[in-house]
Amino acid sequence: MQDSSSSQNWKPWKCGLRSHEVGVWLSGEGENSDIVVSSRIRLARNVSGMPFLSKTSAIQQIDVMKHINEALNRAINTNGRNLTDMLDMSVLEAQFLLERHLISPDFLQSRMHRGFFTMPDESFSLMVNEEDHLRMQYFGSGLSLKECWAKLDEIDKKFNNELPFAFDDRYGFLTACPTNVGTGMRASILIHLPGIVLTKEIDRVLRGVLQLGLSVRGTYGEGTETKGHLFQISNQRTLGQSEAEIIDTLQSMALQLVKYEREARNFLQTKMKIHIDDKVLRSLGILTHALTLNSEETLNLLSTLRLGLYKIRNLDPGKLNRLMIITRPANLQFFYNKELSPDLRDIKRAELIRRTLKDADF
Amino acid sequence: MQDSSSSQNWKPWKCGLRSHEVGVWLSGEGENSDIVVSSRIRLARNVSGMPFLSKTSAIQQIDVMKHINEALNRAINTNGRNLTDMLDMSVLEAQFLLERHLISPDFLQSRMHRGFFTMPDESFSLMVNEEDHLRMQYFGSGLSLKECWAKLDEIDKKFNNELPFAFDDRYGFLTACPTNVGTGMRASILIHLPGIVLTKEIDRVLRGVLQLGLSVRGTYGEGTETKGHLFQISNQRTLGQSEAEIIDTLQSMALQLVKYEREARNFLQTKMKIHIDDKVLRSLGILTHALTLNSEETLNLLSTLRLGLYKIRNLDPGKLNRLMIITRPANLQFFYNKELSPDLRDIKRAELIRRTLKDADF
Repeated sequence: MQDSSSSQNWKPWKCGLRSHEVGVWLSGEGENSDIVVSSRIRLARNVSGMPFLSKTSAIQQIDVMKHINEALNRAINTNGRNLTDMLDMSVLEAQFLLERHLISPDFLQSRMHRGFFTMPDESFSLMVNEEDHLRMQYFGSGLSLKECWAKLDEIDKKFNNELPFAFDDRYGFLTACPTNVGTGMRASILIHLPGIVLTKEIDRVLRGVLQLGLSVRGTYGEGTETKGHLFQISNQRTLGQSEAEIIDTLQSMALQLVKYEREARNFLQTKMKIHIDDKVLRSLGILTHALTLNSEETLNLLSTLRLGLYKIRNLDPGKLNRLMIITRPANLQFFYNKELSPDLRDIKRAELIRRTLKDADF
Repeated sequence: MQDSSSSQNWKPWKCGLRSHEVGVWLSGEGENSDIVVSSRIRLARNVSGMPFLSKTSAIQQIDVMKHINEALNRAINTNGRNLTDMLDMSVLEAQFLLERHLISPDFLQSRMHRGFFTMPDESFSLMVNEEDHLRMQYFGSGLSLKECWAKLDEIDKKFNNELPFAFDDRYGFLTACPTNVGTGMRASILIHLPGIVLTKEIDRVLRGVLQLGLSVRGTYGEGTETKGHLFQISNQRTLGQSEAEIIDTLQSMALQLVKYEREARNFLQTKMKIHIDDKVLRSLGILTHALTLNSEETLNLLSTLRLGLYKIRNLDPGKLNRLMIITRPANLQFFYNKELSPDLRDIKRAELIRRTLKDADF
């Protein structure tokens, strides 16, 4: 499907990811994965004896990159791959990584002395010199917070052995921003709640989430909009709670939300089945016929399809998750291996979706 | 497709039309039939020596019915079929005929002493004691005003031989309302102008139509709304112009409108091809996937499909014309041979459309 004639003009890229595949955490497998898209644990760490980022010189920042790269290669099997210097990346490639949730919007504010690494399957990735010296994250499919934490904890310990992290016996891990001090952990789930939204229970439910000291964000983190009925729920506190407690709280809330969502879907299936099924199949009709589709409409239509997967043959959550990512603007351009104007993106997005859903039927 | 278990409870009907087929004038054939759906000539006539309807007694009205029935059977080959007394018809059957353009909304104001007749192919039909004693119409597919007039003129003359019509040497045919005096003729076309609507030229174009002394109405005649980009254009004057002149004026205007519409479609295909084609294929996607469709949305979607027939395989104007009629509320119930609530109609309408369009592809 790649247009080889134009790919010669295409700036080669650094991150080593395949543009046709997405991370294993989008496989659509695992516990409650029809509702919980993915789980993620992020740890904020700083190199012991080194000032926080805002107090460091350029030389110190480069030093941090170097130390972390060395520790990384000793802590895990990187297959000889090193940190990628963000300066070597095109804006589009950085956007590609952002769309894949591998880097944060803040990380793109400057690309000087910033490093990035990801495992090819995108389960584990890290940013160097974002707000802290090191931000590591581990992603899993479905509701898999405990598994993610087990994996990341193991990597974190090995890392710490190679390159001790700033740690205070009273406060725990020290971080640039006080909101991360303690565990330095942010655990989150990406959860799909169309049933709760359609039954107009979402405001009430989200108030309950906030009351438990958790926070609700849009798909792409702090300050981003909620789209396609996808919500990111995460812990706010990092101090005075152990990692296990943080995960337990979030896990309970996740199971509660799954329960509410299932109840809402049952209600919809009982009280307004035809209208929900109609909405689902119309979404399929538009996705399989439209010649031009923008990002936002795509996300909303795919979200509706996800709600109605039981109506559709030859379609699974993994295929939908993949589409949600590879149809985003930068991912789409890497998929087609060429720069595309917004109008052309809408056309190519529709083409890719038609092709992917060509066997989906009801 | 008929549900025979319920058809036993279904009140049998009188008009003798097949609910699965529509009139030959909807075949989608004939001159410029991609734009001009159909042509129609209507004549208003009154029995000589009999007062106009508003001045007649019940006995005289029954007498008019009887005389017209006899004259009808002598004037044309009715295969022994007589006028149907509207009192024998259910409300739903009358609605069925209205949706098929075989009777007028006014005709349903009262059903006392009113008679109806149609040829099985719906080309020729008549109403007795609507506003005048006799209203006859002849329908043809595409732009076929001259052919319709030739046919109707022949029937009219035979009728007149059997049952002389009220005629004044100075004014012509005498009618209950002065607006029909003279020829008693209303010639009209049903024309599909999505291109002119989408290029926002419709107001300007319709002003031109009105300036020529023609009138513009919705699909179902006077006082009805314009839907699905379908317009009914007809003459206003019946006095001081011969039948041939009336038809010539309308024919010229029809050809002018066809020209404008083709220009508008060419413009759309040149300047916004992708958006028009997208709109067309989305309509196909919705029509082939929706589980519930109301009348109005159906008409709009079918109208868009009609505009984009060149994009679609296994679909022709005749199939679309038929769908436009048999998906209307009363027609749909006769098609399924049972009474259906509005909600159930929307479901059955969608089912019928999905079935009809199942091979339509792009």
